[in-house]
Amino acid sequence: MNNAKTRVLTGITTTGTPHLGNYVGAIKPAIEASQDPNVQSFYFLADYHALIKCQEPSRVQQSRLEIAATWLALGLDTDNAIFYRQSDVPEIPELMWMLSCVCAKGLMNRAHAYKAAVADNEEAGNQDADKGITMGLFGYPVLMAADILMFNANKVPVGRDQIQHIEMARDIAGRFNHLFKGDYFVQPEAVVDEKTEVLKGLDGRKMSKSYDNTIPLFSPEKKLQKLVRKIKTNSLEPGEPKDPATCTLFQIYSAFASDDETQAMREQYAAGIGWGDAKNQVFDYLNAQLREPRERYTALLEDPGHIEAVLQKGAERAREEATRTMERLRAAVGLGRFV
Amino acid sequence: MNNAKTRVLTGITTTGTPHLGNYVGAIKPAIEASQDPNVQSFYFLADYHALIKCQEPSRVQQSRLEIAATWLALGLDTDNAIFYRQSDVPEIPELMWMLSCVCAKGLMNRAHAYKAAVADNEEAGNQDADKGITMGLFGYPVLMAADILMFNANKVPVGRDQIQHIEMARDIAGRFNHLFKGDYFVQPEAVVDEKTEVLKGLDGRKMSKSYDNTIPLFSPEKKLQKLVRKIKTNSLEPGEPKDPATCTLFQIYSAFASDDETQAMREQYAAGIGWGDAKNQVFDYLNAQLREPRERYTALLEDPGHIEAVLQKGAERAREEATRTMERLRAAVGLGRFV
Repeated sequence: MNNAKTRVLTGITTTGTPHLGNYVGAIKPAIEASQDPNVQSFYFLADYHALIKCQEPSRVQQSRLEIAATWLALGLDTDNAIFYRQSDVPEIPELMWMLSCVCAKGLMNRAHAYKAAVADNEEAGNQDADKGITMGLFGYPVLMAADILMFNANKVPVGRDQIQHIEMARDIAGRFNHLFKGDYFVQPEAVVDEKTEVLKGLDGRKMSKSYDNTIPLFSPEKKLQKLVRKIKTNSLEPGEPKDPATCTLFQIYSAFASDDETQAMREQYAAGIGWGDAKNQVFDYLNAQLREPRERYTALLEDPGHIEAVLQKGAERAREEATRTMERLRAAVGLGRFV
Repeated sequence: MNNAKTRVLTGITTTGTPHLGNYVGAIKPAIEASQDPNVQSFYFLADYHALIKCQEPSRVQQSRLEIAATWLALGLDTDNAIFYRQSDVPEIPELMWMLSCVCAKGLMNRAHAYKAAVADNEEAGNQDADKGITMGLFGYPVLMAADILMFNANKVPVGRDQIQHIEMARDIAGRFNHLFKGDYFVQPEAVVDEKTEVLKGLDGRKMSKSYDNTIPLFSPEKKLQKLVRKIKTNSLEPGEPKDPATCTLFQIYSAFASDDETQAMREQYAAGIGWGDAKNQVFDYLNAQLREPRERYTALLEDPGHIEAVLQKGAERAREEATRTMERLRAAVGLGRFV
């Protein structure tokens, strides 16, 4: 690994099936970014994190497989990017423990996710403000700090709601460097892409698993057609001009289409295209775009051994660095070998 | 490893130099217990735990070396007992994370050590009740649960103040078994030895590093003599009868001497032995008892490579089981391999 390269690290949640919103908002820009020769990308399936919210083993397992297959089907270059499963790098929870010993509990008391859970409990009138909150939920920003600091990532692309976690990682890194008198960790930076689109789902709200309004990225053709037809539109008749700006269907189309194609669709909207016609066009377009990666995706899902091998290769590259880093850190805190 | 054997697990704190109190209260009974053929003993240097309280790398490092040398010098049979450094088993913090995801935060809110730290803050008038408390201090009962559950220990010898931690480990084990529908963990039992003596120190209070009143177990001869002479006695003159029951010197002697020898000293007390004479006798006795292990200890300290090799052998045995256990647990929670 070339240390002069900027290191960009991205964790991928593994509790669901990738949908169009994930693709537009996260996967596509990440895969594009990984092609920059000045960047060393780290992508990992954040499956230790998945345990916080999901106690359904089969769902975690299936999601990990689908997500790995998705990224590979979409052309992630795993010779360049380091693509691994978090749970294949046991050095990460080990580092988490080391960081826990320098991380103030007060920092976690102020974490958004924890505070939101407490607020929910208070609103529900629960006497125990911590009801239903696990140590996993409470402490996961420290695990995230370990994810990032383990590889001295310079940049971490995140949504607005995650900025706080990166600040916490910086805080913990600084504290560790100070206490153990060395430059052990680089201070990571949050990168918030303001342009990244939040795709709307079937019902017009943000496309999200939790709203049950998603279009899975690699739905089979028939299913994709059915879902596109279910996208909520208004009651304007064919012939009446329609407003692309407020239209979910249009937004989804434009997220995939070129500028020229988007412009052409905009004109059809102005000319009063009927919703049925528009939906057919959008489905045809999406289907044409997704056909090839979908075929690769389906083939990959049928060959989990190949996916496993790719991830093992990634884990090996990640651990090569992680074991070296941990050896250095163990010596720094007084846990080195005797000879 | 014979699974029919009762498994007894003991963690050894690694922030100080072993003293006579450690020997009498913990080391001697543990080494004796490990000779029971019906028992599989696990002894580990709890060096991950040491990081909670100690940010002096050289002190942690030195303490680990001295403690390992002490146990070996005193005859721990490492072919029988499994003797390892916690930090050589990275599966332990990995298990800690898994357990964190099923462990209620509320459980940790009620941990004695945490509550005591909060009480100290409140007493000191600190506005932040969590001032100076790290995530390590807050969450270490979960690490302790991982220490114990990793090896399915049946019994854990502890002091009264540690009983709560074993109850927490039981709670966490039960929760995990329930959530993931299997008998993954044995419920450990705390074993509190009511007979175990708490040795008094130079000033008559409990012998403890924190009171700075200890007699290091393997003090060089001159130093040992000097320290025994410093043991606090009263102002009774030679010829006046003395009370063994309240006498630190007598307690220390009797912790090492046979019943007959103790009885003989008791008679000398009744006959009015002078303090100088008594101290000389106690020193001579201790010195004779400790000479041989002290020589072994000194030789071991000069051969850290040997200690390292012994601990590596122990780590190998521990990890043989830990890696197998983690593979099973990963599959249980949905983090298994794809093939």
